[in-house]
Amino acid sequence: MIVLGNKEYYKGIGQIQFEGKESDNPLAFKYYNPDQVVAGKTMREHFRFAIAYWHTFCGHGGDPFGPGTQQFPWDLSNDPIQAAKDKADAAFEFITKMGFGHYCFHDNDLIQEAATFGESESRLATITDYLKEKQAASGVKLLWGTANCFSNPRYMNGAATNPDFNVLARAGGQIKLAIDATIALGGENYVFWGGREGYMSLLNTDMGRELDHMGQFLTVCRDYARAQGFKGNFFIEPKPMEPMKHQYDFDSATAIGFLRQYGLENDFKMNIEVNHATLAQHTFQHEIETAAKAGMLGSLDANRGDYQNGWDTDQFPNNIQETTEAMLVFLKAGGLQGGGINFDAKIRRNSTDMADVFHAHIGGADTFARALLTADKIITSSSYEKLRTERYSSFDSGKGKEFEEGKLDLKALYSIAQDNGELTLQSGKQELFENIINQYI
Amino acid sequence: MIVLGNKEYYKGIGQIQFEGKESDNPLAFKYYNPDQVVAGKTMREHFRFAIAYWHTFCGHGGDPFGPGTQQFPWDLSNDPIQAAKDKADAAFEFITKMGFGHYCFHDNDLIQEAATFGESESRLATITDYLKEKQAASGVKLLWGTANCFSNPRYMNGAATNPDFNVLARAGGQIKLAIDATIALGGENYVFWGGREGYMSLLNTDMGRELDHMGQFLTVCRDYARAQGFKGNFFIEPKPMEPMKHQYDFDSATAIGFLRQYGLENDFKMNIEVNHATLAQHTFQHEIETAAKAGMLGSLDANRGDYQNGWDTDQFPNNIQETTEAMLVFLKAGGLQGGGINFDAKIRRNSTDMADVFHAHIGGADTFARALLTADKIITSSSYEKLRTERYSSFDSGKGKEFEEGKLDLKALYSIAQDNGELTLQSGKQELFENIINQYI
Amino acid sequence: MIVLGNKEYYKGIGQIQFEGKESDNPLAFKYYNPDQVVAGKTMREHFRFAIAYWHTFCGHGGDPFGPGTQQFPWDLSNDPIQAAKDKADAAFEFITKMGFGHYCFHDNDLIQEAATFGESESRLATITDYLKEKQAASGVKLLWGTANCFSNPRYMNGAATNPDFNVLARAGGQIKLAIDATIALGGENYVFWGGREGYMSLLNTDMGRELDHMGQFLTVCRDYARAQGFKGNFFIEPKPMEPMKHQYDFDSATAIGFLRQYGLENDFKMNIEVNHATLAQHTFQHEIETAAKAGMLGSLDANRGDYQNGWDTDQFPNNIQETTEAMLVFLKAGGLQGGGINFDAKIRRNSTDMADVFHAHIGGADTFARALLTADKIITSSSYEKLRTERYSSFDSGKGKEFEEGKLDLKALYSIAQDNGELTLQSGKQELFENIINQYI
Amino acid sequence: MIVLGNKEYYKGIGQIQFEGKESDNPLAFKYYNPDQVVAGKTMREHFRFAIAYWHTFCGHGGDPFGPGTQQFPWDLSNDPIQAAKDKADAAFEFITKMGFGHYCFHDNDLIQEAATFGESESRLATITDYLKEKQAASGVKLLWGTANCFSNPRYMNGAATNPDFNVLARAGGQIKLAIDATIALGGENYVFWGGREGYMSLLNTDMGRELDHMGQFLTVCRDYARAQGFKGNFFIEPKPMEPMKHQYDFDSATAIGFLRQYGLENDFKMNIEVNHATLAQHTFQHEIETAAKAGMLGSLDANRGDYQNGWDTDQFPNNIQETTEAMLVFLKAGGLQGGGINFDAKIRRNSTDMADVFHAHIGGADTFARALLTADKIITSSSYEKLRTERYSSFDSGKGKEFEEGKLDLKALYSIAQDNGELTLQSGKQELFENIINQYI
Repeated sequence: MIVLGNKEYYKGIGQIQFEGKESDNPLAFKYYNPDQVVAGKTMREHFRFAIAYWHTFCGHGGDPFGPGTQQFPWDLSNDPIQAAKDKADAAFEFITKMGFGHYCFHDNDLIQEAATFGESESRLATITDYLKEKQAASGVKLLWGTANCFSNPRYMNGAATNPDFNVLARAGGQIKLAIDATIALGGENYVFWGGREGYMSLLNTDMGRELDHMGQFLTVCRDYARAQGFKGNFFIEPKPMEPMKHQYDFDSATAIGFLRQYGLENDFKMNIEVNHATLAQHTFQHEIETAAKAGMLGSLDANRGDYQNGWDTDQFPNNIQETTEAMLVFLKAGGLQGGGINFDAKIRRNSTDMADVFHAHIGGADTFARALLTADKIITSSSYEKLRTERYSSFDSGKGKEFEEGKLDLKALYSIAQDNGELTLQSGKQELFENIINQYI
Repeated sequence: MIVLGNKEYYKGIGQIQFEGKESDNPLAFKYYNPDQVVAGKTMREHFRFAIAYWHTFCGHGGDPFGPGTQQFPWDLSNDPIQAAKDKADAAFEFITKMGFGHYCFHDNDLIQEAATFGESESRLATITDYLKEKQAASGVKLLWGTANCFSNPRYMNGAATNPDFNVLARAGGQIKLAIDATIALGGENYVFWGGREGYMSLLNTDMGRELDHMGQFLTVCRDYARAQGFKGNFFIEPKPMEPMKHQYDFDSATAIGFLRQYGLENDFKMNIEVNHATLAQHTFQHEIETAAKAGMLGSLDANRGDYQNGWDTDQFPNNIQETTEAMLVFLKAGGLQGGGINFDAKIRRNSTDMADVFHAHIGGADTFARALLTADKIITSSSYEKLRTERYSSFDSGKGKEFEEGKLDLKALYSIAQDNGELTLQSGKQELFENIINQYI
Repeated sequence: MIVLGNKEYYKGIGQIQFEGKESDNPLAFKYYNPDQVVAGKTMREHFRFAIAYWHTFCGHGGDPFGPGTQQFPWDLSNDPIQAAKDKADAAFEFITKMGFGHYCFHDNDLIQEAATFGESESRLATITDYLKEKQAASGVKLLWGTANCFSNPRYMNGAATNPDFNVLARAGGQIKLAIDATIALGGENYVFWGGREGYMSLLNTDMGRELDHMGQFLTVCRDYARAQGFKGNFFIEPKPMEPMKHQYDFDSATAIGFLRQYGLENDFKMNIEVNHATLAQHTFQHEIETAAKAGMLGSLDANRGDYQNGWDTDQFPNNIQETTEAMLVFLKAGGLQGGGINFDAKIRRNSTDMADVFHAHIGGADTFARALLTADKIITSSSYEKLRTERYSSFDSGKGKEFEEGKLDLKALYSIAQDNGELTLQSGKQELFENIINQYI
Repeated sequence: MIVLGNKEYYKGIGQIQFEGKESDNPLAFKYYNPDQVVAGKTMREHFRFAIAYWHTFCGHGGDPFGPGTQQFPWDLSNDPIQAAKDKADAAFEFITKMGFGHYCFHDNDLIQEAATFGESESRLATITDYLKEKQAASGVKLLWGTANCFSNPRYMNGAATNPDFNVLARAGGQIKLAIDATIALGGENYVFWGGREGYMSLLNTDMGRELDHMGQFLTVCRDYARAQGFKGNFFIEPKPMEPMKHQYDFDSATAIGFLRQYGLENDFKMNIEVNHATLAQHTFQHEIETAAKAGMLGSLDANRGDYQNGWDTDQFPNNIQETTEAMLVFLKAGGLQGGGINFDAKIRRNSTDMADVFHAHIGGADTFARALLTADKIITSSSYEKLRTERYSSFDSGKGKEFEEGKLDLKALYSIAQDNGELTLQSGKQELFENIINQYI
């Protein structure tokens, strides 16, 4: 039984209990044990689980065909500052009860945007101070902050890529404040998600000019934060085409190419989301591998999509095989660079009980914990790594090694081809690799 | 170690051995135990695993960008009859070594089509006799037979739905022979897969006329087989759009509607393939449930697709969660009506060793066995069924029951709505249901 | 120049003018001429264009990542009844200015739902009376009405398929009132769109029981309306999986099969939406042809999707080729049975001017008009129909005809196959058919 | 009437004639006039249409469910050298009759690969000499050459990215010969399509190592060709996931990023294929724009995909709107850098007449010609360019311009945001832009 809240507004959701068989109890972790050591680090250190303020504390279950269904008690006050504090109280209670150590936010998740820029600035400062106290009292830390430059109608044509310079400037002002808040709260990283950076129609768009603006914009943001003493990472979060028809940060390969072109590759890394990988027709594993190869595996947004819908369902992670394969890549890459695993996921629209919020986060954390344990076992106890490495052994010595070292030209390859005669086919043994993975699940 | 073959042509693949860690040994079943009783039946009885002659013994790994890569030794003879017998020897040896009890075929899998219709008929008769002997000697049975009315160029515009009546007649002749062979071999079912029944372009197509032809065609096939004493089921195998741009048997709902429209619903059932479900934007589970609801859950083609490609990859089943959810529906539906689980799957083009064929089938059977065990435990030991049933309890008595019994009209519903006041939201608890499933995997 | 409104609240949008080159003027129809006769009927009679109240007068451009952007002046009043009347004034002014003859609504489009069922009933009655006057004054007619049983949180688990009987009853009450309003306004048809009739997760769903409830529910609705003297059609609007993970009315073939199973086929027809066809992996043309073949081509929802997103973008129709091919099928089917062409489409979120609403509808109507003209020319002046019909000529006489008439059994087909020898391939000439279409565009 | 061939083997296809209405005659261009000047260049110069040797002269209509259906007479000889010459005769006759000026090939299209590397080299040399004569006699030129390093089973695990160094070396040898042949024939460009450069399963793949090999491999190829005096462009042809599960050259953005990372950006450009864009979830226009922005718009492969299948249908281009929008981008980008428009398209499997080959190419060329004419008119006569340019006018002067010039930091943007107050929304006018395009079609 989980007891929630000590305030008036918690009335009605105070106690969460499961009435099914005790053996099924969904209110206890089955795999996630923060102190358990796996591959040389505790699970806590590997994962640095974070709660996504926007989904867990600001979402209400609305969708394009109907408004929100979820009425949680921290929203009741009509005073925006009181409402923000109530939400913060609920958030820190929940994070603490879950035993997680981090949270992530957009500026407007923390407190409702005001009618004027100045008043919004003042509100953000107020709630920042309050969160500082909450962090100090609980030990919960800020994994990353960001600014919501996609919801307000003013950003309907983009923020950094808006054809109207004044909108770009407004986004700049807003991001300055979000960076300030992130620094004030000891945030370890700062994220950019370009939800409206892209186009609705290529017909009315100058893509080249917009991309140059985006490069310049990120540059000035980075320069400002560094000047303020920010030492953390900046993250780009790729996503292909929602809410825009097409977004510029389509996937990791695209975003990495962009960062290199504008000289941003030393400060920026990837924040990879499972569901966004799916929407870009990649696997989560592929996106992690791509970022790791570039030295830019910054952070992960844990969730899952529906392979049969084409939109961001942001469901809680429960895919055991996908997550196991992802943890294989994660472990081989040496984990994340600065980031953590943020549950950027929301309960279904028809999950309307506070208990559902607990079930969802517990199931999600367990999915990752189980996957990590399995991946570690595959690496340490199975034939997997040996089989995979051996496929490339012809490059470990002799002519293959010379090729890798840049010592063979095309004529040299031609001579080898002439001498070799026809080659024996080497099976890729995919079914065997798949069976090994499944045996360890 | 598996020893294969006692004939000259087996040279080179005689012994299959795994060189990795013994604990990973992919040449032994980990979950599939044919004699183990689950939910009142042995696994053998539940599954009736069958080998797909076409993939396992006729496939060579070709794809649209390259020819076959797999050269298995039963293909060597230039005499089509000898080649067919060699293939049958290999097939029955493999099926027996795997401990499976059934096989499935297209006419042209068994023996190469000849230059004339008459010669093809005679070839089919010859190999049918040979297979009779093989069946008798091994105890292996024919789960279902079918005719390949899609590969030969003559069927490029369809078979039963070809605009040219003479092609339709040719398909009729071929199917008569395939039905005769199926009956002669004690086949338990007969399948129709309408691979070219559909259209390449709607522009040159009279869809209504083609559908009427298909209805009439299936009618005469059924009538003929029944007249020959065939007591088994006919199966339709839905698939949405490959190889045609659009196929008429798009999915189960479409095929069931078609069968009812043409009065075929008492003789025909569904043969549902995982990968075809995926291509139709359904889950495998959805297709099984749809067929079961209609009383038409005939048989299953076990494989899996790639959610990120749009074509029939026909990979061996290894998706633990998908198969577990499918086995939940399977068990609740009381299993299959007449059919079995046929591995309509092929090893990857770059899986070129005979060992890969073993790994693939072993992994596939284990995936189903594990899923069945898990699903049975979920049903018998968890809160799952109770939670699901309770959602509908308002229809088990009172006004809800009256509605189900057809005793309430719209005015009665209106009165209830007037009296009720606003309703309390009932959470669908999806995350809890998902957690329960995962706990039992 | 279009002058809008004579009321205070129109201030600011009063005059819509195009400042580009006169030759491009998007405020005039280029192809749509209501009085022009094509294939024996005026365009007005063919199309019966209707405005969708929900998009054009209730939509504000919100999406899952941001609230509405479009602030049109008819929303200003805080009194729900006054706001509803202002909206009706604007709607009828717009429809009249466009020269369209029909509109379509959901109950809650007309007037905001109230806190209680009784108060909602009374509000609906009030606005119905007002609309009666508007119709009489303008000559604009109601093409169809429907009830919104998907937006309100109470319907989050479905309406007719909700596991809670009381929700089903509530939907019944609401639909009774919507049917009453439709009849009162002389509505020619009544529509069911099962936006929440389906499942979020098959795990917590009894699909068979839900489908039976849906069949029974439609039965009592039909019976009630007929008892009230309603002579029009009922329409089902297929859509595969939005907002639910999977909807029961997946596509036309599924919906038609369902209607026949529950004995509803004589009262119900299809309302086919372009974007829903796309989401179901069909072409618009395919869905029209499927409905026409079943004698159920009721009405069309004109819009378009984005082939590269997986959701309902509901863009205004502008695809010339798709619409031309659709109009070919439309003309061959003899047009619609009772319905019309309803612009179920919305301007983009970043189209925030009243002028955009005009451009969108004008472009949409012109797309259909141009397509109708082209399709008619193709049928009457080109080789198209002859080429297509000739493909099937082998069924027009001789053995082919006998087959169509049910006079040939499988043995007869077999004999023909034996006698025929190998057949000559008949090219489908798809590229030629496509060229002919394009030549006439 | 088109008369084909003067050789024995042409018997039976000698005369191609259309029997429909003369007005529909599909054997004449309706829009393509090579000498017509559009936007300062003749159509011939804009397009440099090329025939794809592989589809038009080597394809037979096979698909994964059936072998080829198309038997064209140039394949008859059993002597590979004679067959290659017959094919070349047919090819040059066809290209000449179509009035096109270029062709493109893979080495193995020209002549069948032999059993040994040495013999293949010799065959290639023989046919290269023959083609030199054909080119001289006809004036037809080689737009680009390439090597087929994806069909032969030896490349099943990749060519440049194969885990086996000896396969990589073999590919190197083969490409050396293809480069030599391209140079010998005066080829203007050389293409790389990485059809097997990717992975079947990430589980058995070291993606980082494979990418490094690919970078090194392209480097040695470039260096060799430059050393031989080749002055043309190298092209990369992006494609996301066919035939592999995932290919490294996923799309233009990915390929451009890769080229820059390995220092290849000055020698390589993009060869963009319509159908590959579709498969990567981009529009053709988007891919052209992306390449143009990077200064890498090299060449185009003209065809189209089916938006409802997930594979490379390679249909002939006939999408008027898509091509018009593409030509808009093409004209604004100043056309192609070194390449041309190659019909990488095949007639449907059931298009089995030589006439279909003509219809297809004529329809394709007309689609491009019509699109170019329309796009030119849109640019020169409509409000389109002005409307689009004006959207960005705030960056043409003042603070916006300073931002573009790198003169504003984040604090400056913040000050502007503070000063501005709330901003007026600027409609994107997408529907208007779309209407303008359609008006000119």
